[in-house]
Amino acid sequence: MARIPDSHPRKKSLESRQKIVDGSSMGLLADSAMIAHGRGEAFDYLLGERTTGSAREAIRESAARLRNARRPVISVNGNTVVLAGDGAIRLAAVLGCPIEVNLYYRTPTRVNGLISLLEEWRSKVSQEDVPDGFDGDWKESVEGVSLLGESPNFEIEGLEGPRSNCTLEGIGGADTILVPLEDGDRCEALISLGKEVLVVDLNPLSRSSRMATVTIVDEVSRAFEGILSHLLNDSDYMQTEWDNRKSLKESLKEIGDHFSE
Amino acid sequence: MARIPDSHPRKKSLESRQKIVDGSSMGLLADSAMIAHGRGEAFDYLLGERTTGSAREAIRESAARLRNARRPVISVNGNTVVLAGDGAIRLAAVLGCPIEVNLYYRTPTRVNGLISLLEEWRSKVSQEDVPDGFDGDWKESVEGVSLLGESPNFEIEGLEGPRSNCTLEGIGGADTILVPLEDGDRCEALISLGKEVLVVDLNPLSRSSRMATVTIVDEVSRAFEGILSHLLNDSDYMQTEWDNRKSLKESLKEIGDHFSE
Repeated sequence: MARIPDSHPRKKSLESRQKIVDGSSMGLLADSAMIAHGRGEAFDYLLGERTTGSAREAIRESAARLRNARRPVISVNGNTVVLAGDGAIRLAAVLGCPIEVNLYYRTPTRVNGLISLLEEWRSKVSQEDVPDGFDGDWKESVEGVSLLGESPNFEIEGLEGPRSNCTLEGIGGADTILVPLEDGDRCEALISLGKEVLVVDLNPLSRSSRMATVTIVDEVSRAFEGILSHLLNDSDYMQTEWDNRKSLKESLKEIGDHFSE
Repeated sequence: MARIPDSHPRKKSLESRQKIVDGSSMGLLADSAMIAHGRGEAFDYLLGERTTGSAREAIRESAARLRNARRPVISVNGNTVVLAGDGAIRLAAVLGCPIEVNLYYRTPTRVNGLISLLEEWRSKVSQEDVPDGFDGDWKESVEGVSLLGESPNFEIEGLEGPRSNCTLEGIGGADTILVPLEDGDRCEALISLGKEVLVVDLNPLSRSSRMATVTIVDEVSRAFEGILSHLLNDSDYMQTEWDNRKSLKESLKEIGDHFSE
């Protein structure tokens, strides 16, 4: 693909598209991953490809809840790893939590491929400058991030087949799960287990969005950057009684307003 | 894929998705075709997966303009053939016009593969019952539909590279072009050549939608069915001074209304 000039107004979106096309040709993504990405592109376009006010609030709330969690985990699928694997590693390093690869269409090849990609990111991110506001040994924290999902030893109650599989060290034993781009059924099952589920989803009307404890209606890499920034530089903020329904309504209004411009 | 039960509220949408996944694994579609389809899915979801009032008007206007055209042509890309190849054949049979395969990312393999798929549809459609309102020999009309695009002998002025290629018998010499899912640049170039361009596009804000003479904001197979029905049973309707800007505004309003429900 030709290099996209820096001045292109939709550079970020086109680069993300290319990451998905590449991930797909590498065999890391399910058949429907590109279609799902296209749906996301359309919703992001409607949002104006920016983090809206209501998304900023949801990001802040999610950061506070992750900080307060006893056993947080970041659950990632193929699109999340391809689009924002580096962001996931940074968040996990700051939170001291594992990342679990958790696929709806699970195959050993894809799980292993995605874990390898995360290992590459872990190595790159460990060599980055210490982020502003981070207190501790960055390299050690990043290298200590465990990457789970290869050997599931736990089943999510209420789900059938391979998509119920996860690990006890990760999703199974977690109290708070940050899970971008999640399937509605699985989101519902996790909520039923009494877990706090923080979803990142560009469609405020999706079942995941409506089921979640907190829904961040934003593009996944922007959402991860936002959470990181709040974790590092906004530690006074305390979690609230969150009204997710109200937040989703606000997202819909923002889309409507942007659309009618 | 498991059979989708008839009762599933989004059966049609899921079947279309499967057609795109299959077409892609058959090598008929460009890398970005699945992503484009996903964007379309999102916009169709916002429309309520139905033909809206403003789309019905645009369908009626397009039917009238195709009927009045001296040399109409239907220009199809990979997604159109995969999603609505049968509909294109029926329209071409009624209009007595050719279909031209016209790809943005043109490769001989894909052009030939898509023409073969259209040939299969032509054979199937020729054996269908004569549609209500059709006056003439259906089998002969269908078998007479020419399928162009294999040997381009004309260049669209104002475009560079392979995407400028087309045929003189088809797009080059046409006065009115029905072109679903078209790229913005090409739509603009065709308009600059003085042609009447009837676009089918689910995104009322896309550049194609804004450039076109008439834009049908609808899913391509529904749009084709609608045009067919008007061609066969609404021959009294005369084309109007069409205000496409006003029609697009109406589409946006319909999406906004559906969204706020």
